[in-house]
Amino acid sequence: MPALDVAGEFETIERLLRPLAHPEWGRGLQDDVAVLPSRPGYDLVLTKDAIVEGVHFLPDDPLETVAKKLLRVNLSDLAAKGAEPFGYLLACHWSDRCGWPEREAFAAGLAEDQRLFNVFLLGGDTVKTPGPASFSLTALGWVPAGSAVSRAGAQPGDLVFVTGTIGDGFLGLKAARGELSLDAERIDFLVDHYRSPMPRLDFADTVRTLATAAADVSDGLVADLAHVAKASGVGVDLNLAVLPLSLAAQAWFEGRVDPQAALADLATGGDDYQIVFTAHPRHEEPLRREAERRLLRLTRVGEVTPGFGLRATYGGELVALSKGGWTHG
Amino acid sequence: MPALDVAGEFETIERLLRPLAHPEWGRGLQDDVAVLPSRPGYDLVLTKDAIVEGVHFLPDDPLETVAKKLLRVNLSDLAAKGAEPFGYLLACHWSDRCGWPEREAFAAGLAEDQRLFNVFLLGGDTVKTPGPASFSLTALGWVPAGSAVSRAGAQPGDLVFVTGTIGDGFLGLKAARGELSLDAERIDFLVDHYRSPMPRLDFADTVRTLATAAADVSDGLVADLAHVAKASGVGVDLNLAVLPLSLAAQAWFEGRVDPQAALADLATGGDDYQIVFTAHPRHEEPLRREAERRLLRLTRVGEVTPGFGLRATYGGELVALSKGGWTHG
Repeated sequence: MPALDVAGEFETIERLLRPLAHPEWGRGLQDDVAVLPSRPGYDLVLTKDAIVEGVHFLPDDPLETVAKKLLRVNLSDLAAKGAEPFGYLLACHWSDRCGWPEREAFAAGLAEDQRLFNVFLLGGDTVKTPGPASFSLTALGWVPAGSAVSRAGAQPGDLVFVTGTIGDGFLGLKAARGELSLDAERIDFLVDHYRSPMPRLDFADTVRTLATAAADVSDGLVADLAHVAKASGVGVDLNLAVLPLSLAAQAWFEGRVDPQAALADLATGGDDYQIVFTAHPRHEEPLRREAERRLLRLTRVGEVTPGFGLRATYGGELVALSKGGWTHG
Repeated sequence: MPALDVAGEFETIERLLRPLAHPEWGRGLQDDVAVLPSRPGYDLVLTKDAIVEGVHFLPDDPLETVAKKLLRVNLSDLAAKGAEPFGYLLACHWSDRCGWPEREAFAAGLAEDQRLFNVFLLGGDTVKTPGPASFSLTALGWVPAGSAVSRAGAQPGDLVFVTGTIGDGFLGLKAARGELSLDAERIDFLVDHYRSPMPRLDFADTVRTLATAAADVSDGLVADLAHVAKASGVGVDLNLAVLPLSLAAQAWFEGRVDPQAALADLATGGDDYQIVFTAHPRHEEPLRREAERRLLRLTRVGEVTPGFGLRATYGGELVALSKGGWTHG
């Protein structure tokens, strides 16, 4: 597509993006397409997420971490399906504030994450927008044929697990906005998590082999688990009292007057990029061993029921959660 | 990703996009990913283009044709590589003006084109932006393994051909902006072309089997042919005097005082979505037969030389074309 500043976009591709190209399939970004050979025995897993300045990232977030967040939220989707990522296509809609230093920072963030996650750029588009910057990314990964985990496999009697900690996304946004009063180290941890969440690719293999259903926690533990329940045609009981909290979240939690409301906030806040999944009880022990081997926190937060929808409790008491937030039960 | 108006986006997916989903690989858009089985013997061809309101489409363009344009400019990239499209992922960054009627029109445009081109929605994301609307699309197609045409295969002695007519994109933008004085039928033709260009999928097979290099004409015939020359390490002589013009473009051309300047405008204007390609002279006859069989105009517009870069002539005289436009030679 022709753009207003063709030279700038050509140069962006030439100088900043070409070094990121997949050595073979990206065609050096000199073509309009990427060409991928077939990989018999494997399925290709694709996902595409978009982020917008002022909606999914803050106007003063460094472009380096914006790039990382964009890539990582997509890798998180692949991890939750048990897929191993290998590449991505990228669309940059640069705003006026995206000059060369910002574009260089964006590319540097991608370069660092490409090394970390062993993925390469396959192609895409770079255009200007008169509005706020926005970006979208299509991430690609492989799974052995037929083994991609879906949202739809949960069975009554399965247990519900979540990796890592929940609520750091919710608190990270508050921290990045300067709305939290915690000590500096905890603020830094939360802002880092908000800006560059870590996709749980280290647990993708385990999820693929042992989970009956899985999703990444992007919309919030409650919403994502409700999606699993709906797709699987089952109910889920979620125990908010055992929600795994980071030290920073724990510190915030201890300052709250209403623990139930606080936990509901953390469970509905989103942006955690952990994996929530269901598994047969006989797999609890192997799951715990795998988590331990990877030094990864794994928490059993509930169970699958023959019912319908998500039911959250705290201390045996029902907590009514509305779509956008929560209300006491 | 959580969005400002989660309900609206969920509903958009549920009501408008789910009916467009690939019957199998799109997982009913109920998952975060699409899962594609391997197709041994075929390569997967991927491309991703983005469009922004006020840059690539006009604020008063109907959303139905915006959706079609978005899909078609991507299908055009696949056609030029000889690929057969089957699906796409979509990111919608809706502006405030995108209420239900606009979103419905957008989905209706996609639905119509899905039937026309036999493609299905595989997944994607729908978010709100406080700025102008923008969209990006990742299109996927198949080619028999190893047969995707690249930009890099042109050889000295090859002939240069272009499908259809050139300049309707340049004039279409002017027509859509109300800047042209032609009769109503011709204005309608040009505006239609600008809003819903027709990707040359009907010639993709022929290009795949007979072309040495190819690109779609999106940035302008001159720019896209220059890309082919650069990627192939050859020169190209382009004869502007034989530029194929539509009746509407012909009518506009006849009103110009400087024919050379007028042709340079048409050849650098972009948004034509034809295929420009190179082929060995022995394939000229088969190419002409294939074009005739498809009632498609095919014009020999130049030849490949051992030189470097693109050299445009008019009546034997050299025409100097600058990057953004042109100057007399």
